[in-house]
Amino acid sequence: MSFSERLNLSEFAWTALESRNRPMHVATLLIYVKPADAGEDYLADLVSSLRESTEFVDPFNKRFIAPSMMRPYPTWERDYDLDMEYHVRHLALPAPGGERELGALIARLHSNPLDFKRPLWEYHVIEGLEGNRFAIYFKMHHALVDGIAGVHMLTRSMSTDPADNRSPALWSAEAPADSVEAAPAISRFRRATKGALRSLTSFNNVSRSLWQVARAARDEKDPFSLPFQAPKSILNGRIGTQRRFATQAYAFARIRRLSKIAGCTVNDVVLALSAGALRKFLREINALPGQPMTAGVPVSLRPKDDQGAGSAVAFIIANLATNVADPQRRLEVIAKSTTRAKTLMSELSREEIENFSALMLSPQSMQTLFDMEGYTRPVFNVTVSNVPGPTETLYLRGSQLEAMFPVSAVTHGQALNITCYSYGGNISFGFAGCRDSVPHLQRIAVYTGEALEELEAALLPKEEQPQAVEPAPIGRRKRAVNA
Amino acid sequence: MSFSERLNLSEFAWTALESRNRPMHVATLLIYVKPADAGEDYLADLVSSLRESTEFVDPFNKRFIAPSMMRPYPTWERDYDLDMEYHVRHLALPAPGGERELGALIARLHSNPLDFKRPLWEYHVIEGLEGNRFAIYFKMHHALVDGIAGVHMLTRSMSTDPADNRSPALWSAEAPADSVEAAPAISRFRRATKGALRSLTSFNNVSRSLWQVARAARDEKDPFSLPFQAPKSILNGRIGTQRRFATQAYAFARIRRLSKIAGCTVNDVVLALSAGALRKFLREINALPGQPMTAGVPVSLRPKDDQGAGSAVAFIIANLATNVADPQRRLEVIAKSTTRAKTLMSELSREEIENFSALMLSPQSMQTLFDMEGYTRPVFNVTVSNVPGPTETLYLRGSQLEAMFPVSAVTHGQALNITCYSYGGNISFGFAGCRDSVPHLQRIAVYTGEALEELEAALLPKEEQPQAVEPAPIGRRKRAVNA
Repeated sequence: MSFSERLNLSEFAWTALESRNRPMHVATLLIYVKPADAGEDYLADLVSSLRESTEFVDPFNKRFIAPSMMRPYPTWERDYDLDMEYHVRHLALPAPGGERELGALIARLHSNPLDFKRPLWEYHVIEGLEGNRFAIYFKMHHALVDGIAGVHMLTRSMSTDPADNRSPALWSAEAPADSVEAAPAISRFRRATKGALRSLTSFNNVSRSLWQVARAARDEKDPFSLPFQAPKSILNGRIGTQRRFATQAYAFARIRRLSKIAGCTVNDVVLALSAGALRKFLREINALPGQPMTAGVPVSLRPKDDQGAGSAVAFIIANLATNVADPQRRLEVIAKSTTRAKTLMSELSREEIENFSALMLSPQSMQTLFDMEGYTRPVFNVTVSNVPGPTETLYLRGSQLEAMFPVSAVTHGQALNITCYSYGGNISFGFAGCRDSVPHLQRIAVYTGEALEELEAALLPKEEQPQAVEPAPIGRRKRAVNA
Repeated sequence: MSFSERLNLSEFAWTALESRNRPMHVATLLIYVKPADAGEDYLADLVSSLRESTEFVDPFNKRFIAPSMMRPYPTWERDYDLDMEYHVRHLALPAPGGERELGALIARLHSNPLDFKRPLWEYHVIEGLEGNRFAIYFKMHHALVDGIAGVHMLTRSMSTDPADNRSPALWSAEAPADSVEAAPAISRFRRATKGALRSLTSFNNVSRSLWQVARAARDEKDPFSLPFQAPKSILNGRIGTQRRFATQAYAFARIRRLSKIAGCTVNDVVLALSAGALRKFLREINALPGQPMTAGVPVSLRPKDDQGAGSAVAFIIANLATNVADPQRRLEVIAKSTTRAKTLMSELSREEIENFSALMLSPQSMQTLFDMEGYTRPVFNVTVSNVPGPTETLYLRGSQLEAMFPVSAVTHGQALNITCYSYGGNISFGFAGCRDSVPHLQRIAVYTGEALEELEAALLPKEEQPQAVEPAPIGRRKRAVNA
C-alpha cells in the first residue's frame, strides 16, 4: 500500500457521517480472569508491554487526512510514530468494581469521540473489576472495522493456550498470509456502498419487487414488513452526544433449546427477547406504538441465481410483533416474518439483494433516506445484530477471556442498537443507546432475561422447568451493567 | 431572572469559540485528605449524597439554547431536572494512585468537551489517590465562570470547620445575599467585552498611547514589551483536541522571601519561575526564540483618574527575558518590564485600561487579532495568571482540602497556560497544554522547581542555604503530575 491512499467509498461514508452528536466508532468490551498467580503489577506490566509493541498492521497506523485545497478528497496516511500513552490507556473502576461501575465507565468512554488527528483507535485496560478480573474496552472507527472483522482482529491477538505469554498486541497481530478473514467484510462493504450510491432507484426497485412477490401470496395475517412500515417511536428521533450501555448474557443452550422447540432460528429467539424487552419497557413509559415495531437485521443467505459463490449478506426487516401480548405467539410472528423476508430475498438476484441491503447497511444512504421529504415513518425501529464470536476459549497473556460484549454506534433515527456476540457457551448482548432518547436502558437489558423466562415457561416441557440459574459473566449479576 | 434569558456578550463570545479542537471549559483539581475515621463507603456515600442535592443556584442550571429560525440569538434556559448521574461522576485511579496516574486522568478528562445539551458543568469524584486521599475535578464552561469567580464558588461550598458535615453541594451553595463576590467578575467581563467589541480602534489607540508614553522615557535597555513584539514559538500555532496537564506547588514563603530580597512582587517571581522553565525546556528541544518571549498577565491596579472605585483589572505584557541566561538578571528584567507596564497603564484612564485589557481578555477579539492579516507575530507567547485562593483551611464533609490546582483552557495561538492558586501556604501551579504542540509538559513543570532553586542560590544569603525540602501536595512528589 502506498504512503498516501484515498479512502474507499465505505470509509468515506463512515467518516463523512462523523459529528459531535454522532461519533461513528464501534467497540468491544472484553472481560478477562487474571491468572491465579498474577502479581500486583500484572496489569501495569501488561500496559507497559503493550505500549512497547510499536509494529502496526493495517489499519492501526492509518491516519485520516481531511480534504484540502490541493487535494480535494480525504486520504489515509501511515503514521509510524504513535503516541502510545494516548492509544493504550490504564484505567480503574471505583469500588466495588461491579457491573454498575463498569457500565457507567463504558458509557462515558463510548460517548467520547476519537481524535481524528491520530489513527482511529483506543485500547483501554481497566483494573478493579471484582473477582480477580479486568476489562478491556477496544474502540475503533466504523470506517476501519465492522463487527465481523473486529471479532477476527481480536481473535488473532489472543491464544488458545493459557501458557502462551507471547501473543502479539492487537495492533501488531498480522493476519495469516493466506487469510480470507478480512476480505469478505471489506468486499461486502465495498459492494454494499457501491450499490447504495448507485441511487435510491435500486432501493425503490427492490422494494417494489419484494412487494410484488409478497402480494402474490399475501393475506391479512402475513407479518412480512417492508421498510417505512415501522411506527414512530422514541427510538427514532435525533440523538445527543451521550450514551448509555448495558449488557446481558444467556447460555446459548437455553436459546437453542427454545429455537428447536419453536421450529425457528436462534436469531428469531434473539429477536423475540429483544421484542419482549422493548414491549415491556415501552409499555411502562407509555410509549409503545400501536403498530408492531420492526427491526433491521443482517442475515446471510444464498441467492437464487448464485449457489456457488457463498452466502450474501442481506438486510431484512423483521416484524417484532410488539403489539402481541402472548410471548409464544410473538415468537411465531417474528419467525414467520423473518422466514418470509428471507424467502422473498432469496428469490432475488445477488445484485438485487446487495443493492437493497446496501441502503440498509450504508450510513450515508441511510442518512439520505432519513432526510427524505415525504417519509414520516422510520425505515425500521431498531437494529438487532447477532455476530458469531470466537469458537474456542481464548487467553490474553495467561488471562482467560470470560466474556465479550459489543458496544455499537447509534445515530439519528436509530437511538438503540442491540448486538450480540456468541462466545464461551453464551450469547452476550450489548445494548448501546443515546442517553437522552433511551432512559433506563438497563431495564431493557434486564427485560430480555424476563422475556427469556416467559418463553421458557410457555414452551419448555414441564420436566425442564424451572430453568437453571443463568450464567454470570460480570459479577454476581441479576441486574444489567448500565450507565 | 426570567426563564429564557439572552446571553450577554461575554457569554456569547466564549460559547461562540467552542469547537472540537478548542473546548472552552476551565476546571479546578482539588485534593482532599479523608477523615481518619472514614469508612470504606465514605466516597460512595459522598457521591450519593451529592447526587441527591438537586437545588441549583445560578449558573448551575443554565442550559444553552442555540439560535434558531424563530430566535436568531442564543439564550439560556433553566433546567430543573438535571441528570445527576451525568453531572456527578465517581471515578478511580489505577494503582499506585500517584501523581502520574492522576495527571493522566485529568489530562483525558480535560480533553473531553462538555455536552451543550445540558448545563455546562461536570463534577468528578476520584478515588484511589495514595495517602488516604481523594481528588475532585470540577469543570465548567468559561462562559459561566472565570478563575476568580470559580474560587469563590468552591470556597462557598466548603467549611472552615472540620466537624461541619452539612456544607451544601457546590451547585446548591447560595452566595450570601449581600455578596459582592460575583459582581466584579461579571461586570469586569461585561465591561471588557463591551470595550473589546467597540472596535479594534480602541486597541490601537491605547497601544499608541502606551507607546508614546513609553517612548518619552525610553532607552535601549527598557524591557517594556508591547503586543505583537513576541517572537514566534512552538506555543503559538494551531492546537489539537487532546491536552496534557501537570502541577507543581511551592511554599508561598519561599517565593515571598525571594520577592523581598529582589524588591519585586510575588507575581514577578512566579513569572521568573515560568520564564526559567520555558527557557530550559525550549533550549533542550532547540526551540528557544532568540528574542525574549512575552507573557500576558492579568494584574489589578488603580487607574490614575479613578482612585475611589476600586482597582481595575489590567492585562499587561511581561517581558520574560528568556534570552537572558543569568536567573537573577532575568528576574530583574521581568520585574522592570511589569513595573513599567503597570506604571504606563496607570497613566491611562479607567476606560482606556479596560478597553485595552478587553481585547486581551476577550476570546472573540483575541481570535480576531490572531486572524488579522499582516500580523505574523503572536500577541504574546503564553498566559501566566496568579489567582488568589481561599485564605483559610477548608473542609468538605470532614475532608481537609490539601491543595487546589487550576486546569485552564488553551486555544489556537496559545497552546500553554500557566495559572496558579494560592492556598494553604503554597502557590500551586497548574500547567495546561495542547498534547501535540507541547510535548513533555511535565518537564516544564519540573523546571519551575529548578528555576526556584537557581534563584534561591543566586539571591539568598548564605545562612539560608540550602533550602528546606519543598512541600509535597500530591504524594511524595519529585516529579510533576503529568500526562
